[in-house]
Amino acid sequence: MRIGILAACLLLGAQASAEPAASGESPEYVKGKETLARVTGSSGAKVVESLQDIAPELGRWIVEWGYGQVVSRPQLDLRTRELVTVGALTALGHAQPQLKAHINGALNVGCKPEEIVEVIMQMAAYAGFPASLNGIALAKEVFAERGVTVNRTP
Amino acid sequence: MRIGILAACLLLGAQASAEPAASGESPEYVKGKETLARVTGSSGAKVVESLQDIAPELGRWIVEWGYGQVVSRPQLDLRTRELVTVGALTALGHAQPQLKAHINGALNVGCKPEEIVEVIMQMAAYAGFPASLNGIALAKEVFAERGVTVNRTP
Amino acid sequence: MRIGILAACLLLGAQASAEPAASGESPEYVKGKETLARVTGSSGAKVVESLQDIAPELGRWIVEWGYGQVVSRPQLDLRTRELVTVGALTALGHAQPQLKAHINGALNVGCKPEEIVEVIMQMAAYAGFPASLNGIALAKEVFAERGVTVNRTP
Amino acid sequence: MRIGILAACLLLGAQASAEPAASGESPEYVKGKETLARVTGSSGAKVVESLQDIAPELGRWIVEWGYGQVVSRPQLDLRTRELVTVGALTALGHAQPQLKAHINGALNVGCKPEEIVEVIMQMAAYAGFPASLNGIALAKEVFAERGVTVNRTP
Amino acid sequence: MRIGILAACLLLGAQASAEPAASGESPEYVKGKETLARVTGSSGAKVVESLQDIAPELGRWIVEWGYGQVVSRPQLDLRTRELVTVGALTALGHAQPQLKAHINGALNVGCKPEEIVEVIMQMAAYAGFPASLNGIALAKEVFAERGVTVNRTP
Amino acid sequence: MRIGILAACLLLGAQASAEPAASGESPEYVKGKETLARVTGSSGAKVVESLQDIAPELGRWIVEWGYGQVVSRPQLDLRTRELVTVGALTALGHAQPQLKAHINGALNVGCKPEEIVEVIMQMAAYAGFPASLNGIALAKEVFAERGVTVNRTP
Repeated sequence: MRIGILAACLLLGAQASAEPAASGESPEYVKGKETLARVTGSSGAKVVESLQDIAPELGRWIVEWGYGQVVSRPQLDLRTRELVTVGALTALGHAQPQLKAHINGALNVGCKPEEIVEVIMQMAAYAGFPASLNGIALAKEVFAERGVTVNRTP
Repeated sequence: MRIGILAACLLLGAQASAEPAASGESPEYVKGKETLARVTGSSGAKVVESLQDIAPELGRWIVEWGYGQVVSRPQLDLRTRELVTVGALTALGHAQPQLKAHINGALNVGCKPEEIVEVIMQMAAYAGFPASLNGIALAKEVFAERGVTVNRTP
Repeated sequence: MRIGILAACLLLGAQASAEPAASGESPEYVKGKETLARVTGSSGAKVVESLQDIAPELGRWIVEWGYGQVVSRPQLDLRTRELVTVGALTALGHAQPQLKAHINGALNVGCKPEEIVEVIMQMAAYAGFPASLNGIALAKEVFAERGVTVNRTP
Repeated sequence: MRIGILAACLLLGAQASAEPAASGESPEYVKGKETLARVTGSSGAKVVESLQDIAPELGRWIVEWGYGQVVSRPQLDLRTRELVTVGALTALGHAQPQLKAHINGALNVGCKPEEIVEVIMQMAAYAGFPASLNGIALAKEVFAERGVTVNRTP
Repeated sequence: MRIGILAACLLLGAQASAEPAASGESPEYVKGKETLARVTGSSGAKVVESLQDIAPELGRWIVEWGYGQVVSRPQLDLRTRELVTVGALTALGHAQPQLKAHINGALNVGCKPEEIVEVIMQMAAYAGFPASLNGIALAKEVFAERGVTVNRTP
Repeated sequence: MRIGILAACLLLGAQASAEPAASGESPEYVKGKETLARVTGSSGAKVVESLQDIAPELGRWIVEWGYGQVVSRPQLDLRTRELVTVGALTALGHAQPQLKAHINGALNVGCKPEEIVEVIMQMAAYAGFPASLNGIALAKEVFAERGVTVNRTP
């Protein structure tokens, strides 16, 4: 059936990604690369690239399963997914590089900086002030790097 | 002195809630009660009530600060807030009663069951399968209690 | 290349699983079902089955990615994998149903009860006594259910 | 050899405990049993007893190292230690049986119920409302079992 | 309207703080600023200040709710509160900047360095050695910065 | 009195360690030093040394209880113990210095780099991608420092 899926993709010209699929890439991988690029620009691909000499399958899983299957599902839009991810990583507290990546990701898919800040602030009620403060510190870094300003009308 | 605060509110006509504020309730408390009712129906008020003989201030904080100040802010709609909360509590893994309450809360503010399931599933990528599986088990309980069915069109 | 993989499997008769692959099952899914059965007997399949009406893709991901890709890799034997999983779930502390499943899983793939107990005890040094105590309580349940005795020669 | 250790202790008159040390018990074990009894009454000893057939060394470590060495140190009084433990277990969120045991322990060593409640409430600021709510629920159980009432003068 | 609240407070003579309340500050905020200064010297105010351009309400919540309502309650003295906070943040493990702040805070409100070290050491039994080791590393930094020595008489 | 204990040991000929025990060292401490050296080379001893002026007992506990009693038990070989520890610390996510130490430790006791990578990758399924990614980043550091290459034959 995977043959069928691939065949269907090819027949239907479902291959809309700008970058042609490399030999050996499953349709989920191709889809995942597209979504990864939408969410992270080129930084996600760099993370995957950095895994090549030590744990390339981890990189493949992130693209093919994480982005290609989980995050690409149409049941929830990418903006909501990224806000949920920012909230969850803020609450967990131990995933700072990934939280920073997804604050960027949320901006990339169209979330307003005010929404991102709001989600991180809300986590104070569910995971305590330290988690929120550390999340806001990362948002501040990201916003400064990108020249984003937060509109604080009361 | 809280009566004085309330007096100030009344004078300023800040009191827009349908249910009249009890004596000694700050405007944030009144706002919080409204939002708590929208999110939890009557179950949140029961949790607060259950704290009266042991930790009433904790109940007041949840209403006045948590719901009156944090969750009531207009920068993010309640639907997104509830999905973020469901995601974060799923990822944390140790807050099962509250996760169940917020799966109900998400339904109460208009989230589709498919969206709730989607958020819990997405957490597999960020917090692992056990967190997602335990979240789905609670969603299954809630949906069964409310007669909600999940529309699984592929 | 995936076509190549599948072709190779078919040509080489790599399909050794007793249960024939249902239509629509990828080779990874078939491999995952095999490994899931080795680790969990029939209980893992029941968990997957229980997800059918609410989050069937989560079940598929567990089988196809979790067991078919991650756990089936030959770089580490199943005995070591299960001991590592028992240790990690003990340390995390919030995944009790899954910890119980993997204590069973460790026995199923040939770990000695003494080894399982040892791993859970070791977690006291890395995650504290409460995590270890709650893990041992689950091991005690599992061993009682299966009539397993722990050989405590000093 | 442990008999040799005990012999040394006896010769040096280090044995001040009311209950005579069983054969093979180190001075730290004897001290730990004393402190365990002060903190938990007889319930801690029952936990240790329950480990005898599966992980007796874990029980010995809890008594000998945990209570005999860590908790028995004179640098901090038992009341403060128990309040700190109640706070930490509330914040961790995954150690409910142990949190319940230490709410009892705090009462046993002379903490006022108001102090215990206060510590659990304070954790809302550092670990979020769910952690505090689940801690208060356990305190409510313990206080009900012991007929303890909380004095809530404003 | 907050001006109205403040007006009520002023009329009722509730304003006992040395530093005059700025326009728009609630009595809880004024109380929180006092407690924040007692616990953190000027560093807490700097954290709050750093939030002004991105998440000023988070700063207000920390002052008004966290310090003004939770930490200022008279049911527990500040020394015990700070030791509990140091213990909880050590156990959580993901809140290093806040743990460092509260090691300083504990010293500021009169805890002895030996007591702080003792609490962090005790967490080894409840959250494992890594949590304790990372907490001690921070205490070592703080003590070095302040020229504090730990009195290690056996 | 510890001298008394040591005397008993010496009389009983329990002292089999190559390095003579310093005055005041229990047999468990001596055993722990041996195991610590096998696992960490000289780096563990440096950690213990760094605790001397602030929390020397924590260092003693790590050697005497952690390595001397827990990790030295013969029921599980050191290779498996280190892989389990690497997995658990990866999953916990907040113990990065210790995770790095145990990636080194795993290599020191004979684990292959491929096995270490495999354990860290496996944690993606149980604790999410961020935990695995941060673990792999540390493994990459360690392998680079030691000139270790990972053999990635498919």
